[in-house]
Amino acid sequence: MEKFTAYNPVTLHFGKDVLNEFGNTLLQYGKKILLVYGQGSIKKTGLYDKVGNYLKEINATVIEYEGIKPNPIIQDVDVAAELGRKHKVDVILAVGGGSVIDSAKIISITIPVQHSGWDFYTGKAKPLKAVPLITILTLAATGTEMNPFAVLSNHETMVKDGYGNKLLYPAHSFLDPQLTMTVPKSHTAYGIADLIAHCLEAWFGNGDSSLGDRFIVSIIREAMDYGPQLLGDLCNYELREKIMYAATMALNGLTLQGKSSGDWGVHSVGHILSLLYDVPHGASLTIVYPAWMRLVKDRIPDRIAFLGSSLFDQQLSAAETIEKLEAFFRSIDCPVCLSGMDIPGVDKNAVYETMISNKVSGANIKLTSKDYLPLIDLFW
Amino acid sequence: MEKFTAYNPVTLHFGKDVLNEFGNTLLQYGKKILLVYGQGSIKKTGLYDKVGNYLKEINATVIEYEGIKPNPIIQDVDVAAELGRKHKVDVILAVGGGSVIDSAKIISITIPVQHSGWDFYTGKAKPLKAVPLITILTLAATGTEMNPFAVLSNHETMVKDGYGNKLLYPAHSFLDPQLTMTVPKSHTAYGIADLIAHCLEAWFGNGDSSLGDRFIVSIIREAMDYGPQLLGDLCNYELREKIMYAATMALNGLTLQGKSSGDWGVHSVGHILSLLYDVPHGASLTIVYPAWMRLVKDRIPDRIAFLGSSLFDQQLSAAETIEKLEAFFRSIDCPVCLSGMDIPGVDKNAVYETMISNKVSGANIKLTSKDYLPLIDLFW
Repeated sequence: MEKFTAYNPVTLHFGKDVLNEFGNTLLQYGKKILLVYGQGSIKKTGLYDKVGNYLKEINATVIEYEGIKPNPIIQDVDVAAELGRKHKVDVILAVGGGSVIDSAKIISITIPVQHSGWDFYTGKAKPLKAVPLITILTLAATGTEMNPFAVLSNHETMVKDGYGNKLLYPAHSFLDPQLTMTVPKSHTAYGIADLIAHCLEAWFGNGDSSLGDRFIVSIIREAMDYGPQLLGDLCNYELREKIMYAATMALNGLTLQGKSSGDWGVHSVGHILSLLYDVPHGASLTIVYPAWMRLVKDRIPDRIAFLGSSLFDQQLSAAETIEKLEAFFRSIDCPVCLSGMDIPGVDKNAVYETMISNKVSGANIKLTSKDYLPLIDLFW
Repeated sequence: MEKFTAYNPVTLHFGKDVLNEFGNTLLQYGKKILLVYGQGSIKKTGLYDKVGNYLKEINATVIEYEGIKPNPIIQDVDVAAELGRKHKVDVILAVGGGSVIDSAKIISITIPVQHSGWDFYTGKAKPLKAVPLITILTLAATGTEMNPFAVLSNHETMVKDGYGNKLLYPAHSFLDPQLTMTVPKSHTAYGIADLIAHCLEAWFGNGDSSLGDRFIVSIIREAMDYGPQLLGDLCNYELREKIMYAATMALNGLTLQGKSSGDWGVHSVGHILSLLYDVPHGASLTIVYPAWMRLVKDRIPDRIAFLGSSLFDQQLSAAETIEKLEAFFRSIDCPVCLSGMDIPGVDKNAVYETMISNKVSGANIKLTSKDYLPLIDLFW
């Protein structure tokens, strides 16, 4: 194991009707609230009205920022932060999936400073403090509800990147699996893929922990056992619950204990596809993972084979492991190659150039520019 | 799953030489320190001097309370709290195993009030605040370093009980597996048994979580795979590390997510043996668990059989599971019956009466006084 520090101050409220506790929790932080959400799906599902009623009950003053995009961008963050600063909000309430919560995290540290939120990504600014953040999660996928990371895109500089800081932990996150019942099949599958990919990034990270490996295998097997069942039964509460819990555990720090870091090479490549072609995050990962594993197969054959043997209860080679994992992604209708996404005008050269400018690599399995073209070829 | 709230604000510093970070961490809380420790083993190992040097470096004023007993008692807590109150300490530093840290937790909430610490156990007092607590762990066993529980004995009323409160979380816990290298074989084994027992209490708790089950099985298997190796190689750092990490994970809240509670029936029975005959905590659990499982075998046969089948990779009945678990405890030289402890003057009736006065039961598998004698008979 590597030396590590574990710290996660989030209060997680998990289960049916946990929103009942939500008003009183919010009140501890104040009454002037910046409500941040996406492009209207919470209005369609009725959650917007429900949250509004809770806010009325506590006589909250609500300032709204609507319109966070699925692959969230810094422009929204900066406008919302200006709004929060102007109104001197006490607390931020993010209602949505990973993009909304990631945006709200950066808003929370941008309000107290005279900077663009992007300056945290480039190192030009350091966060001083954060406006307290409360989240209501509507999508089981990214794990952002219980971690200190936020991924944003900057289309001016064509960069999609992650930023992490202790101040980004939400104070409270409310996870009611009922709120994920309306997520369509495709995005439910992308969420399952995303949580598996988070486990894989930990699996291929720096450092080894035998118990950590067991935890990772536990989470992936949970997703592989119940994910396909859920996709055949989207309104099954118990299955929604299992996947929502697994997604949170996949990236709340547990899998990274005993490691100095995860790898994150596949994520950094996936971000390029999302940046260029707005590929949903989970889908970008199922395209890149099989390709990346084939690329690095001969560098870490044992680690890949041990993964497969642990997941599938039989002795597998690295190559067989990759086949099995790819077959699983296929079985839940996730794309495993770029042609599977049907994107008009995909340009290998643009992918390559953006990988170069984003200096795509992993923390453990280093990628150099020489790897990029062979990797891109494997996307087809 | 049951609805649950997960919250654990402890900062865990884990790994070789993490004490190097310790002085600066302490300084954040102040310079007047109540140092709490046991009956001198930290002086023999040199840890006392080492910690003293760190405290000198930061010019700390140190008030010491030495002499916490292995089965800790309320009298020590009250005297130490009075000392801390008189000196208006800023922070408590507990150096030792579960008994020292549990005592320090109750000291931390007793200092701010005019009460005996026992009043928290009886409900006569409620904690208002806590003096910040920093721990340096020297024994892998109880998990107290990352949870909000404290077990104490009161010999006046002949009660041994646990108390839990959010205020009891240590602020920081430092876990350097090197500090456990000098723990003798017997207590290393009791620690392994203790961590397994904590997992079992979660396994038999209220509520079901498929991923929670996987986590529990992961931790027990880690202990069963590496515990025996460690007992044959007590100075092996990597094995000490694995067991220390497993012990923390066994009772830091992870295994109880998705449950309304663990069972804790076996612990409450084990406490009786410790209270009456000073049986080491871990040893009390290996005596009681096989007996308890035989007692409740026909009430929860499937749950016991599923445990065995998950742990031992073969289809097992409840009875076979109990045999296998008992055999494991035996294999690490832990007692599986009271006669194995060689206690002079063991008195079945005293055990029975103390079980009655302590109202021994479990939160999930209820025990009544009718169960007590059949259970006690199974201790032989």
